[in-house]
Amino acid sequence: MNEKIILGHGSGGRMTRDLVRDVFCRHLGDFGPQSMDDGAVLPCEKGELVFTTDSYVVSPLEFPGGDIGTLAVCGTVNDLAVMGARPLWLSLGVILEAGLEIDALERIVKSIAAKAREAGVKIVCGDTKVVEKGKGDGIFINTAGIGVLEHPLTPETIEPGDQIIVSGTVGDHGMALLTLRKGFPLKSDLKSDCAPLNGMISQCLDEAGVKWMRDATRGGVATILNELSEGRPWGVLLEENDIPLSDAVAGVSELLGLDPLYSANEGKVIFVVPRHQAENALKGLKKSAYGKKAAVIGLIVDDFPGKTVLHTQMGTLRTLGILASDPLPRIC
Amino acid sequence: MNEKIILGHGSGGRMTRDLVRDVFCRHLGDFGPQSMDDGAVLPCEKGELVFTTDSYVVSPLEFPGGDIGTLAVCGTVNDLAVMGARPLWLSLGVILEAGLEIDALERIVKSIAAKAREAGVKIVCGDTKVVEKGKGDGIFINTAGIGVLEHPLTPETIEPGDQIIVSGTVGDHGMALLTLRKGFPLKSDLKSDCAPLNGMISQCLDEAGVKWMRDATRGGVATILNELSEGRPWGVLLEENDIPLSDAVAGVSELLGLDPLYSANEGKVIFVVPRHQAENALKGLKKSAYGKKAAVIGLIVDDFPGKTVLHTQMGTLRTLGILASDPLPRIC
Ligand SMILES: Nc1ncnc2c1ncn2[C@@H]1O[C@H](COP(=O)(O)OP(=O)(O)OP(=O)(O)O)[C@@H](O)[C@H]1O
Ligand SMILES: Nc1ncnc2c1ncn2[C@@H]1O[C@H](COP(=O)(O)OP(=O)(O)OP(=O)(O)O)[C@@H](O)[C@H]1O
Ligand SMILES: [Mg+2]
Ligand SMILES: [Mg+2]
Ligand SMILES: [Mg+2]
Ligand SMILES: [Mg+2]
Ligand SMILES: [Mg+2]
Ligand SMILES: [Mg+2]
Repeated sequence: MNEKIILGHGSGGRMTRDLVRDVFCRHLGDFGPQSMDDGAVLPCEKGELVFTTDSYVVSPLEFPGGDIGTLAVCGTVNDLAVMGARPLWLSLGVILEAGLEIDALERIVKSIAAKAREAGVKIVCGDTKVVEKGKGDGIFINTAGIGVLEHPLTPETIEPGDQIIVSGTVGDHGMALLTLRKGFPLKSDLKSDCAPLNGMISQCLDEAGVKWMRDATRGGVATILNELSEGRPWGVLLEENDIPLSDAVAGVSELLGLDPLYSANEGKVIFVVPRHQAENALKGLKKSAYGKKAAVIGLIVDDFPGKTVLHTQMGTLRTLGILASDPLPRIC
Repeated sequence: MNEKIILGHGSGGRMTRDLVRDVFCRHLGDFGPQSMDDGAVLPCEKGELVFTTDSYVVSPLEFPGGDIGTLAVCGTVNDLAVMGARPLWLSLGVILEAGLEIDALERIVKSIAAKAREAGVKIVCGDTKVVEKGKGDGIFINTAGIGVLEHPLTPETIEPGDQIIVSGTVGDHGMALLTLRKGFPLKSDLKSDCAPLNGMISQCLDEAGVKWMRDATRGGVATILNELSEGRPWGVLLEENDIPLSDAVAGVSELLGLDPLYSANEGKVIFVVPRHQAENALKGLKKSAYGKKAAVIGLIVDDFPGKTVLHTQMGTLRTLGILASDPLPRIC
């Protein structure tokens, strides 16, 4: 095999087939496609499915805590899981830029295999396209995912007093990516929190009456909570003191004047649960390695209908709007 | 709204939301997502699903006969249909390059809506990312598709005497794209054949005992037939005289010395049917506007096991191999 991707790898002929077999199917193994047909045939019971998709364009392709392949599996698994679904199957569409090192591609495919194994999902079909050098950026990945709906959520039952829980420290992924960008002046120990959360979420769902949940990706916790509160007869009140932050994120945020509440996460979920079940929810989350720092960070309130408001460490109240634009493009 | 895509449209915040609402959801209407949740909830009966994906990176984005949006719907619908499935739901992942004209994006989304309507499928979920100018090429699209398996195929029953049918003229899409490329010296009336074939295919399935079918996209008819014949105890014999070609494709192919059998199609299917049902299959295909030029182009033979062979107009036999690499990148 050539050591770099060339346009012929996207021809749909021999070179594409060899690449799919020798790189994708080989590393995916039991977690990859089991036929080379036009689509995968999947068994299905009467009920409800959840279907989702995300494309991943992160730069750089590899970063502390993961790579674009890790993201592509975890991100889509998490979107299914927060819908209350059990993730089952993913598709894998890759757009390769001519010139990409096949070694780098293999590392990424190995990450995909490892995370698929961890999450218990299979990559059942895929597609491989190649664009000229300068018309892409190494690799872009799309995964679509299918899961079986097991725990439909009930946001319409949310009421004042319900508790807001976050599954761990906030802002890690976005801050980690920021410090890798060209020109960033400091070294840091920041690491992406990218992780498949379906196991953690299902443990929590078993213990607590989760009414709503969402993974706090682009836009961060503040944007996701705005999507919750917008148009509702109640508001969200967050307690800044209670929001878990890693020391590294706290340090970099302060240094740069950036708000970790608007920084992306790739392994964090926000839950709304009834007050009397918050302890159970925390207990369920903490059973998972990914939920050890779970905490109640706020509650649903009668005040501020439609808004998300932060009770700051200074004692003041600050309305958190939705992220307008992005200080840092291509974090996922 | 700004008239060009900027990085902020990919932030996941306000600008992303507005773009999704004002461009994607507006034009998709009833054929677009009905909620802004992390995934779409879909009803499902006991049975078998088919799941497929393709990314689309065609250049130029718009061409006679369609655009990248047309392709993104038809290509994925056709992969489901040739699996014997009824296409139901698509996901839509777009990677926009900063600088893309929003007008062009709107035309593409309108094409997506029109083809979804024609094919009877819904775009139930999506994702929008933006990359810097020079790191993409206008727009890349991924669609994944889900259908319900209705007519499982039976390639294991294929035997000598079975007929090979093509649903119409060969090579149109690839040749049309070729003549649009920078530096191509001639004007032509070539037009892509891009079309959703699920309606045509289901009519044919009702009339004939189709054993195998495949859409002849990248790699063309010759490559797809190689995938059929490879490793089998029988061969495929094509009759060059019987292969339908438009005058324009015949002219350009001869002029450039290119073989239309290796040129991509985006609206053509190859079928294998029992000899006694070939007439019925043709009748079924011709009920559709997309199958008017359907023809028997060859048959399964005892000779040449594992191979695809062309009986040429000159009377000679020529083995058709699988496309090695691609003379023309980024046709789909
Ligand atoms: N990156 C990949 N990872 C896993 N499987 C892949 C990958 N790329 C392609 N495949 C699998 O290889 C087979 C052939 O894919 P291919 O894209 O050539 O088919 P197609 O979609 O019918 O053709 P086209 O893309 O030209 O429309 C399919 O079964 C597909 O699932
Ligand atoms: N191009 C699009 N066409 C149709 N719907 C879209 C499109 N882009 C996004 N959506 C829809 O908008 C909603 C929000 O999408 P978004 O991608 O922001 O969510 P997410 O995947 O949870 O977040 P992230 O992409 O940061 O992981 C979803 O319901 C999604 O289906
Ligand atoms: Mg997502
Ligand atoms: Mg999400
Ligand atoms: Mg494909
Ligand atoms: Mg295809
Ligand atoms: Mg196909
Ligand atoms: Mg998304």
